[in-house]
Amino acid sequence: MTTPHRAPGGFPVVGVIGAGQLARMMVGPAAELGVTLSILAESATASAALVTPSAPVGAHDDLRAVLDFARHCDVVTFDHEHVPGPVLEALAVAGTVLHPSPAALVHAQDKLVMRERLTDLGIRCPRWARARTRADVVAFAGQVGWPVVAKTPRGGYDGKGVVLAQRPEDLADWLAAVGSDGPLRDGILLEERVDFRRELAAIVARSPSGQAAAWPVTQTVQTDGVCTQAIGPAPDLDPGLAATVTEAALRVAGALDVTGVLAVELFEVVDTAGSPSYVVNELAMRPHNSGHWTMDGAVTGQFEQHLRAVLDLPLGDPRPRQRYAVMANVLGGQDEELYSAYRHVMARDPGAKVHLYGKQVQPGRKIGHVTVCGSDLAELVERAEHAAGYLRGTIRE
Amino acid sequence: MTTPHRAPGGFPVVGVIGAGQLARMMVGPAAELGVTLSILAESATASAALVTPSAPVGAHDDLRAVLDFARHCDVVTFDHEHVPGPVLEALAVAGTVLHPSPAALVHAQDKLVMRERLTDLGIRCPRWARARTRADVVAFAGQVGWPVVAKTPRGGYDGKGVVLAQRPEDLADWLAAVGSDGPLRDGILLEERVDFRRELAAIVARSPSGQAAAWPVTQTVQTDGVCTQAIGPAPDLDPGLAATVTEAALRVAGALDVTGVLAVELFEVVDTAGSPSYVVNELAMRPHNSGHWTMDGAVTGQFEQHLRAVLDLPLGDPRPRQRYAVMANVLGGQDEELYSAYRHVMARDPGAKVHLYGKQVQPGRKIGHVTVCGSDLAELVERAEHAAGYLRGTIRE
Repeated sequence: MTTPHRAPGGFPVVGVIGAGQLARMMVGPAAELGVTLSILAESATASAALVTPSAPVGAHDDLRAVLDFARHCDVVTFDHEHVPGPVLEALAVAGTVLHPSPAALVHAQDKLVMRERLTDLGIRCPRWARARTRADVVAFAGQVGWPVVAKTPRGGYDGKGVVLAQRPEDLADWLAAVGSDGPLRDGILLEERVDFRRELAAIVARSPSGQAAAWPVTQTVQTDGVCTQAIGPAPDLDPGLAATVTEAALRVAGALDVTGVLAVELFEVVDTAGSPSYVVNELAMRPHNSGHWTMDGAVTGQFEQHLRAVLDLPLGDPRPRQRYAVMANVLGGQDEELYSAYRHVMARDPGAKVHLYGKQVQPGRKIGHVTVCGSDLAELVERAEHAAGYLRGTIRE
Repeated sequence: MTTPHRAPGGFPVVGVIGAGQLARMMVGPAAELGVTLSILAESATASAALVTPSAPVGAHDDLRAVLDFARHCDVVTFDHEHVPGPVLEALAVAGTVLHPSPAALVHAQDKLVMRERLTDLGIRCPRWARARTRADVVAFAGQVGWPVVAKTPRGGYDGKGVVLAQRPEDLADWLAAVGSDGPLRDGILLEERVDFRRELAAIVARSPSGQAAAWPVTQTVQTDGVCTQAIGPAPDLDPGLAATVTEAALRVAGALDVTGVLAVELFEVVDTAGSPSYVVNELAMRPHNSGHWTMDGAVTGQFEQHLRAVLDLPLGDPRPRQRYAVMANVLGGQDEELYSAYRHVMARDPGAKVHLYGKQVQPGRKIGHVTVCGSDLAELVERAEHAAGYLRGTIRE
């Protein structure tokens, strides 16, 4: 196992479990801050491993590999939420400083735990229930009507592990697996289908000593369960609702003792009185796709802020640098060769910030994103979508 | 020798000779762009080597090491100007794509060659002469008066290799070395002492296919021969002079076939008619300290732009993101421990962008810089200088 080269002057080593694009996007800020990164990589060619000198290969669920890795780090954080609870507990017992802690992280790992806790805190959620049996499903649908949204409490992401059930039979396979050793051990999460106006994300950072900072609320667009576009700050957002959801995210961060970046994914809804309101969809305890715009669009981007937070350094200014930033995700298309489209995009739009993750192109895979900043929202959306579409191969001109 | 991991999708490998902070500051942009860096490092703990997976150790004047290194790169560029001409020529013969080319780079390596060429191009320079003998020195001083500025044509940087001579005897040692194998082989460069109003830098980038982009002209402050502060755009700069020096820098870039970033260091002077004018001080063919503010203060920073330029990719938008960016260099102080001061600076000024280079603290050594952006110039200067001074240990509060 490679031992990370610690920078002189008393600077720490931050360990990251997982070498996806989120870990990769910490590389630039870490180099700027003078902080050393060490990344436990799923493979030597994983996105972040390509750009990090200390990137030992090991599985996030291999206790020995994780413990070995953590010994060389002053603090350990995460690229994803998939490290199993027992591994996290063993790390804590071994004295590893984990941010977020296992007790906080479980709320991003288990949607049933999350729903229970948020409901206790008075944070608005869709109507929800835990279902173990067909009778539970029928009873919940009786309250909220069909269809119902069913989710595996653990292990889902990007729309995976979610089913829109039209009838109890749609969940028959899942119900058969309840109580097993897998993600349905504790039952299925059922939620009402929310009639939302748009999706939002309230992204905050919180440090172990309790300092917190919030970026402006972000508008997001999901296509087939995958985030495809984000705009920060969310245009035409009711100022009262912006304050409410920011306060809710900060309250969740504090109550759950979250350390690092917390993204609260929300639905904007209209309440029974006709006023703008929200319900919480998901939590993520790490930098999040909806916050990628902050890299180019805010004084302090989410990857820098996450590093500052997990090191308990004073947090940076989260304010936007200009009126709007629009981020469009680049999804893989049919063509494995990307460099020609990349040249074209740069030539067409010298102000576009093109970020690529060093990942093999596969259809639909997140392989990069493009951010443009300015004040003319319609123009920014056109530019970001054109660049992303061209890189995917869905736009030719 | 480590072979760099090439990212999939047809993306190239950029080799950088030298692993100082300039190479280090390419690491973040390269990761964002999806481009692989490989860095020939003077040691395994050199600034850029700490943050680059492919950083073979080898000397920039070791022909075999440089050739071995270059074989794995699609293009080779530089962290400094010290690669000897014969090594550059051998690389070119071996088919290495070099940016800038040896024919361009010699103008940044040899100040006599630079003065001759700029004078031929009609670019304004201080009055200058080549001196081989005491008689040459006396004759030049007879024209411009004492003191005269004497420079070794090759190998100087940060004020090294420069003497302010009050009399011929001050140059006796240098004159004795003229014609030797060292930096005084071809004589000494003598220049009049320029009575300047302030120092400026015109920084541009140019690609092999001839596209060029210019950042706004920067004001710089040198203290004891070392750049300590830069402000971009230069405040209260006469618009005619700004256009003139930008045009001059672009003309130099084109005439010398410069590829990558070119920094033209200038003195702002008042001409005999009382109008603002300039003379060129030095050229650098790489990202330059006076352009560090562009990392945080421009849509496209100089390190991203250098990579785009040497790859002949379309250049990015060089426009500033806000009215002013002020950068102050962090020089090493007495205390090797830096992390406490760093925490303090972050707590005092959440909007300050602190960049540290992973270098051992040594008194007077450039170990980082701080940039602040905004519109109140006096406040920005105070913030940048306070942060840099605190990190150096010259300010305590």
